[in-house]
Amino acid sequence: MKPLPETLEARIGLRVNQLDTPALVVDLDAMERNIARMADFARKHRVLWRPHAKMHKSAEIALQLQRAGAVGACVQKTAEAEALAAGGVRDITITNQVIAHPKLLRVARLAARLQAQGGRLALAVDSAEGIQRLAEAMAQAAPQARIDVLVEIDVGQGRCGVPPGEPALALAQAVARLTQLRFAGLHAYHGRAQHLHGAAERRDAIAAAVQAARHTRDLLTAAGLPVPLVTGSGTGTLVHEAASGVYGELQAGSFLFMDADYARNEREPAQPAFEQALFVKTQVISACDSHAVCDAGHKSHAIDSGLPTVALLPPGRALRYANGGDEHGLLYADSPQARLPALGQMLWLVPGHCDPTVNLHDFLIGVRGGLATGVVERIIRVDARGALT
Amino acid sequence: MKPLPETLEARIGLRVNQLDTPALVVDLDAMERNIARMADFARKHRVLWRPHAKMHKSAEIALQLQRAGAVGACVQKTAEAEALAAGGVRDITITNQVIAHPKLLRVARLAARLQAQGGRLALAVDSAEGIQRLAEAMAQAAPQARIDVLVEIDVGQGRCGVPPGEPALALAQAVARLTQLRFAGLHAYHGRAQHLHGAAERRDAIAAAVQAARHTRDLLTAAGLPVPLVTGSGTGTLVHEAASGVYGELQAGSFLFMDADYARNEREPAQPAFEQALFVKTQVISACDSHAVCDAGHKSHAIDSGLPTVALLPPGRALRYANGGDEHGLLYADSPQARLPALGQMLWLVPGHCDPTVNLHDFLIGVRGGLATGVVERIIRVDARGALT
Repeated sequence: MKPLPETLEARIGLRVNQLDTPALVVDLDAMERNIARMADFARKHRVLWRPHAKMHKSAEIALQLQRAGAVGACVQKTAEAEALAAGGVRDITITNQVIAHPKLLRVARLAARLQAQGGRLALAVDSAEGIQRLAEAMAQAAPQARIDVLVEIDVGQGRCGVPPGEPALALAQAVARLTQLRFAGLHAYHGRAQHLHGAAERRDAIAAAVQAARHTRDLLTAAGLPVPLVTGSGTGTLVHEAASGVYGELQAGSFLFMDADYARNEREPAQPAFEQALFVKTQVISACDSHAVCDAGHKSHAIDSGLPTVALLPPGRALRYANGGDEHGLLYADSPQARLPALGQMLWLVPGHCDPTVNLHDFLIGVRGGLATGVVERIIRVDARGALT
Repeated sequence: MKPLPETLEARIGLRVNQLDTPALVVDLDAMERNIARMADFARKHRVLWRPHAKMHKSAEIALQLQRAGAVGACVQKTAEAEALAAGGVRDITITNQVIAHPKLLRVARLAARLQAQGGRLALAVDSAEGIQRLAEAMAQAAPQARIDVLVEIDVGQGRCGVPPGEPALALAQAVARLTQLRFAGLHAYHGRAQHLHGAAERRDAIAAAVQAARHTRDLLTAAGLPVPLVTGSGTGTLVHEAASGVYGELQAGSFLFMDADYARNEREPAQPAFEQALFVKTQVISACDSHAVCDAGHKSHAIDSGLPTVALLPPGRALRYANGGDEHGLLYADSPQARLPALGQMLWLVPGHCDPTVNLHDFLIGVRGGLATGVVERIIRVDARGALT
C-alpha cells in the first residue's frame, strides 16, 4: 500500500477538535456498527453480500468488509476495479457495461491477473455486440483466462440492461457459447427504487423487480441454462431482495456511511438501523445578523441528492444549510430559539449523497471515540477517487 | 513540476478519437483564443486582470495567463494558494475569509515565502476578529513579512463581506493600524450577478455594486485612507465593471473554458466572444429503442448549474442529456429527425459549470487541431484538485 503523505500521517492521534476544515470524517465506531449490522442481516437471510465500492472507493475498506463476511466488491468502472485490485482485493464484479476496446483489454488483463491470484472478475453485459467485443478482447489479451459474465436485465431502473425474459435468454445463450466467458447469472439492480422515500413505494418497486428476475431465471433454467446467481439490491431496499428467495447477493454499499437522502426514507421495521457515519467538518468563516457562512460548499460535498443537513446541534438549535456556491455554505437559524453560530465555530454536515461526496476527497479521516472528543485513528486513502474510465 | 504518470505521458501525441472515455478535454486553440480576447479586452479598458484559479486549479495555466498579461491569480482556499505557489505562481490573492489559526499560520508562512521571491500574497477580511487573528498569526509565523489585506464588502452577493460604507471604513482603519498588514483595497464581488441570464438584470445588479463600491472608496479616501484597488467581477459581468471607472482589476476565470450555464446568458454586444473550450468526451455503452446510455455521470461533470448539453452534433440531430446517476448519462432524441447514437459512438458534453467539473479530474487533456481530428498536445495537471482547506 502506498505510504500516506507526511502532512496526513501527522494527523493520526490528533483530537477531532484540532482537525482543520473542511474535512471528510468517518465515525469509525458508527461505521463498524453498520458493518456488524449488515453482516448479521446477511447471515440471517442466508444471502451473500458484495458491497458496492463505488461508494467508498477504498481497497482498505473493501478488505475490512471482506473480513466481516463480504464475498468481494462491486465497482462501476474498470479503473475502480484496477485500483481495488492494486490494493489486494481479488474478487470483483463490474456492475456495468464496458464497450471500448482499450478498456476491454484492461478488463481482460485484470481477469487474468485476479484468476492467477485465486480470485475472479465479473462483468455485466446487455448486448450481443458487447459480448462479442468482450470475447475478442479476452482472446487478444488473456487467452488463458476466463471471465464471469452477468447478463443485466432492466428491472425498473430504465438505464442499462435488456428487458427481462427472452432477450436475457438470448444473451445468456450467446455467453454460454463462448469458451472464455462463463455465464455467472443475472444482474438486476433497481437504483431508482433505493431513493423512493415511501416504504410502500419501495416495496412495490422491488416486488416487480423480483417478479421480473424470477421469471427470467425460470426461463433460462427451463432452457437448460441454470442461473448461478441473481445479484442486485441497495441500501434502500435490501430487506425486500433479501426476503425474495430470488436474489442471492446484495450489492448495497451506502449502509456503511449513510447520507441525508437515505435518512429521508421511511424505514421498514426489518431494515437494520444503520447510523450516519460520514460527516463533513466545517467552520464558520463569516457571520452577520442574517446568516453565517461556513467553509464547505459543493466542492466538499455532492448536492445531486439535495443539500447537506447540519448535524449534532443542541435541541431547538437547528440550522438550515443553503447553497453558497463551490466553496461556501450559508447557515440560517429559522426557529426563534435558534442562534446563529459565531465566527470560528465548528459544525458537522451530513452530505446529501455519500458516493459522489467521497469522490471529491483524496482521504477519509477515521475518528475513534465520537465526534465530540474522539481522536484520529486512521487515514483511509480513497484509492479510486476520480477513477472514471 | 512533478512528472506526469507514465500512462498519461503516453497519451501525448494520441489522436483525439483514440482517447478513452470519460475524459476531460480542453480545446487548446479555443482556450488560447479566449486568452487573447481577454487580454485585448483588459488592455482596451485599462484594467488589470487576475483570473480566478478556483476554476482551472493549475499552476501551469496560471503562468500561461500571466505570460498573456494577467497580473497574478485569485484563489478561494489557502491550499489552492499553496498549490499554485509550489508551481511557480508568485502573486496570489485569496478572495475569501480565513479564520482558523492553523490555516492563518499557513497563510503567514506563504506570505513570507512569496515576498522573499519578489511576489506577494493578499487576503480578504470582513471582520475585526478576522483582522486580529491574521495579525497574530503573522506575528507568530512570519514576523518579518507583510501581507496585503482587502476589505470585502457585500455588493449584492449576500454571502461574505461587510456592508458598504462605514463598516468597511472601520475595518480598513483597523487594518491600517497594524504594521504587518497593508491595506490593499476593496474586494467587491457579485457572484450571483454572473449567472443572471438577462443582460439587463446583470447590468442593473452591477450598477448597484459599482455604486456601493464607489461610495465606499470615496468614504475611505475622504477619511485619509486611499484605496489602491477595487477588485471583483466575473465572466458574466466583466463589461460593466471594466467600464465603471471604479473597478481596477477583473477576477473573471470562467472565460478561459466557458460552460453551459454561461452559454445561457444573453450576451452584451461589448462582451468578448468567448468560446466553449472545455468538454467531457463520453461514449455510448448501452442502447435500446427508447434511449442510449453514455459513460459520463455526475462524477465526470458537476451538475450544480444544470446538466451538460451534447455538443458538436450534426444539424437537426440534437440529443438531450438526462441524469443517469453518478456514472451514467441518458440520451434522448426528442426531435423526429434525431437518431439515437449507436453503441460505442463518441459524444462531446459541455458541462453545466466549469469550476466544480475541473475539480473532479486530476488532469486536463489538451487537444490541438480541433475535436474532430486533433492531437493531444499537453496533459495539464489540476494541481489544486481537492485543495479544500
